[in-house]
Amino acid sequence: MNQIWFAIGCLGMALGALIFGFGAHNAQNERWRILFTLNFFIAAIASVLYLAMWTGHGQSIVYDRPTYWVRYVTWILSTPLQILTVTYLGGTSLAFTGAVVGADILMIATGFVATMSPKPINYIWYIVSCGFFIGMFYMLFNQYRSQANAKHPRSRRVFTKLITVHLILWLIYPVIWILGGTGFNLISSTVETASYTILDLVAKVGFGFLALNSFKQLDQAGEAPRLERVLS
Amino acid sequence: MNQIWFAIGCLGMALGALIFGFGAHNAQNERWRILFTLNFFIAAIASVLYLAMWTGHGQSIVYDRPTYWVRYVTWILSTPLQILTVTYLGGTSLAFTGAVVGADILMIATGFVATMSPKPINYIWYIVSCGFFIGMFYMLFNQYRSQANAKHPRSRRVFTKLITVHLILWLIYPVIWILGGTGFNLISSTVETASYTILDLVAKVGFGFLALNSFKQLDQAGEAPRLERVLS
Amino acid sequence: MNQIWFAIGCLGMALGALIFGFGAHNAQNERWRILFTLNFFIAAIASVLYLAMWTGHGQSIVYDRPTYWVRYVTWILSTPLQILTVTYLGGTSLAFTGAVVGADILMIATGFVATMSPKPINYIWYIVSCGFFIGMFYMLFNQYRSQANAKHPRSRRVFTKLITVHLILWLIYPVIWILGGTGFNLISSTVETASYTILDLVAKVGFGFLALNSFKQLDQAGEAPRLERVLS
Repeated sequence: MNQIWFAIGCLGMALGALIFGFGAHNAQNERWRILFTLNFFIAAIASVLYLAMWTGHGQSIVYDRPTYWVRYVTWILSTPLQILTVTYLGGTSLAFTGAVVGADILMIATGFVATMSPKPINYIWYIVSCGFFIGMFYMLFNQYRSQANAKHPRSRRVFTKLITVHLILWLIYPVIWILGGTGFNLISSTVETASYTILDLVAKVGFGFLALNSFKQLDQAGEAPRLERVLS
Repeated sequence: MNQIWFAIGCLGMALGALIFGFGAHNAQNERWRILFTLNFFIAAIASVLYLAMWTGHGQSIVYDRPTYWVRYVTWILSTPLQILTVTYLGGTSLAFTGAVVGADILMIATGFVATMSPKPINYIWYIVSCGFFIGMFYMLFNQYRSQANAKHPRSRRVFTKLITVHLILWLIYPVIWILGGTGFNLISSTVETASYTILDLVAKVGFGFLALNSFKQLDQAGEAPRLERVLS
Repeated sequence: MNQIWFAIGCLGMALGALIFGFGAHNAQNERWRILFTLNFFIAAIASVLYLAMWTGHGQSIVYDRPTYWVRYVTWILSTPLQILTVTYLGGTSLAFTGAVVGADILMIATGFVATMSPKPINYIWYIVSCGFFIGMFYMLFNQYRSQANAKHPRSRRVFTKLITVHLILWLIYPVIWILGGTGFNLISSTVETASYTILDLVAKVGFGFLALNSFKQLDQAGEAPRLERVLS
């Protein structure tokens, strides 16, 4: 059963990568191209992840449960690109971009350790990982939003919507983790795999379209990211 | 026999690193220093790789064949520096530099999975890796070249030569892979090791000298990379 | 006994991270925030390292001695941030910042190989690692200092003090390595662990305070890093 979901994930992400890659190729200017390129790589990395699980890689038996640790290897590459998408749109300063990316990487790394730990030590690491999650979204809802609003006074609702959707989608991951075999074991392995696959598709390809739509709204309000802002 | 080739690789790369490091130390300005520094690290990383294989590290028996997986660990660090050398000379925009580096990293990562896979699954991954290879060189021959030509109207031939040599050298790697024990097993382990070593020396130290020569030609045409362009 | 030192390391680093994180949150401007953020992540990564060792992770028996290889995994992330702290204060150029960070990463990577090698091969790698150490501090005492002095003529003593303390602290690591089980085995495992813990606390949290103090002195002399310099 898991194999079917890996195939769906692989092909769905590849389709997303194709669309974003085509968008990057035909982008009318560099500002759009940066956004399409980021989303292409987010989807392409995820497609490679699902292909790896589909062809039987990246899985080990860890303390009696089959564990797809390869998810964390690819998440440590793809989630910073998702943060960069959000901070690119918001014109976030270097210090805050670095801080959010840093918290994200520590969240994934400690989540990986949680996944590879025996119970009950895994719960300690789960709590640490959730701590970085909270720190990350605290920054997004406070400093990120205030910087974005200050630079885009006519587009405040765009950013509130963007990070609220971001928060809701990313909140589901630790819920699946704690309900699945990694935590309290309340859902079956197939439900766990299916949930991660659907969530990944929505959180990566779906969120990519939301980011593109946000950019369009900023552009129409005359507030799209300027290039010099990317490096400031 | 392999040991001799590892020793040649280690010492050859160390000599290259010494020359490039000396060049960086005595560079007349920051623009030259960036180029020498990039090439120093490309050669230094490769020298460390060959020392590792020489001292018996980074090798495992994978599905009955001895596999030097450590090559991929160092390639994932050194090949992006080679891309940066090329995009530095060409004054490539941020979005395209990121896209070429991203395709390169995915090419090496999927090539690593191919190398660690049983037959025939390894061929699936080999094809995926070649796909990223094609995407990378498509970008170099199209967007990269058109940006480089637009910024250096008097030096078009420099860039065509640079990326043509780049393409030819990097094309030989997947050919050795498919002929060697990782693929159809048509060449012996010693021929495979010797081929990789000679190719690495030409593709890293040799290509480094070509990059330096390209810079000199750009400089003489009054079109050498300006510093502000590195970050744009 | 080791467990107590891991607990001290974990809690001490967490306390440091808390102080630096609080400083970043309340920083009066972006220039201070960058410095506090860098030091927050240096301490946070180290706190996660000690938690990992405390909960029994990241250790293997390598050639009959228990080896905490996880140290190197976190050092490869945290030491570049320490270099960035120093180069941020000094207004170091891109080429030299890259060169010092590159030498640092190669030092940690080859130190890791030394730690995982049987005797006497580990001594070859130890010498290579020390080579990158010397190269790194050669650059800090020469090019780094001359660039920093040129940009901050009234604050020369700040930089000499900063990198002298830096050198002394980092020099102790290879001394513990060669005296401990990884080298000549002249000190017990507990003394080795205690030494690393105390040294880590001084070299990360203590050095963080020195960096903050250096910034303050630069600021008072009217020579604090300007933001445009961070990316130049």
